[in-house]
Amino acid sequence: MKITDLSHLINEDIMVYPGTERPVLQDIDIDGYQEIRITMFTHTATHIDAPYHILKHGRTLDELPIDKFIGPGIVIDCKALAGKEITVDFLKKYENEIADAEFLLLNAGWSLKWKTEAYFDDFPVLSLDAAKWLTNFKLKGIGLDSISLDPVHSIDLPNHHIVLDKEIIIIENLTNLDSLPASGFMFQCLPLKIEHADGSPVRAVAVF
Amino acid sequence: MKITDLSHLINEDIMVYPGTERPVLQDIDIDGYQEIRITMFTHTATHIDAPYHILKHGRTLDELPIDKFIGPGIVIDCKALAGKEITVDFLKKYENEIADAEFLLLNAGWSLKWKTEAYFDDFPVLSLDAAKWLTNFKLKGIGLDSISLDPVHSIDLPNHHIVLDKEIIIIENLTNLDSLPASGFMFQCLPLKIEHADGSPVRAVAVF
Repeated sequence: MKITDLSHLINEDIMVYPGTERPVLQDIDIDGYQEIRITMFTHTATHIDAPYHILKHGRTLDELPIDKFIGPGIVIDCKALAGKEITVDFLKKYENEIADAEFLLLNAGWSLKWKTEAYFDDFPVLSLDAAKWLTNFKLKGIGLDSISLDPVHSIDLPNHHIVLDKEIIIIENLTNLDSLPASGFMFQCLPLKIEHADGSPVRAVAVF
Repeated sequence: MKITDLSHLINEDIMVYPGTERPVLQDIDIDGYQEIRITMFTHTATHIDAPYHILKHGRTLDELPIDKFIGPGIVIDCKALAGKEITVDFLKKYENEIADAEFLLLNAGWSLKWKTEAYFDDFPVLSLDAAKWLTNFKLKGIGLDSISLDPVHSIDLPNHHIVLDKEIIIIENLTNLDSLPASGFMFQCLPLKIEHADGSPVRAVAVF
């Protein structure tokens, strides 16, 4: 068995969604043992968006069955689409692969921009039609190496609404997607079991 | 594939190690999306102790290879040993099983006492000799359904020192161990990738 880590390191210097706060890590040295008091938003670093993040009627992470977070994954290279939309026409080339997968990982090459302001701009984004088209498959989740399924300047987050309404979870801020083959691995993103959680930082991995 | 969740829910009412703080979960409703600001110690709920938790020279969680957190598990029933030590003689009956495993899960039946004060007292604890004996195997980790590898009143935490010095991680506050067979599953406890972490809450699971 081989395991590939797809998660960003969590520290006080990471990129966070505009308007939210960076994590705070406070070292605590208590009588011979070391701990950290960590304060962070549920959408810190590599993390899941649950339906409830956007939809008041949506289920929280702790309400979803645990097998929602593990399944066969595929990677689609979208690097040529910087600043553009990921369209149905583009995705249709991979229709058979998507039909066989439970997790679709979109590799935009954007993790290379992590910790730069360029991370927030011009990443490829699904068109509304493409987001709707993807809900026709049996996908459990869509993973990104960028910060959002919608542009950062989006007000109403339409792609989030479309996929979360179908209980397709979103995994944002993945990294290391270049090290994966196009298919042939199990993707895992087991969230912390936070009560009534709209999201959770995760240690996302691919298992071969 | 079947997945069994072995993790306690994280909320503000959970048991925490005496002298530490319960998590604080603050709902944040920002412009149409829901988040939680969570403040918690790295040793909250179901969590890992890394060597650095106790040993200044020990490695942190983010320094350990990712395959340290996945491997074949076994469960040993220790329910008859409430208030007593888990001795080498007791464990020797399972010597062959332990030799084949990477994670040893000790089922004391203690998760039934979660959220009661009785959780802190009289759980079975490895004798010093048993802790040392277990370091002879190829174990990656030892998992417990109680709050510590040493009694809560322990000052110098000798069992923690013995196993962490050999880079055997400790998984504390597991639950649902009764639902597992004695062997035949992969145990997983992938931690958050917190920089320089002495520990991390985890979503521990068994995968069949």
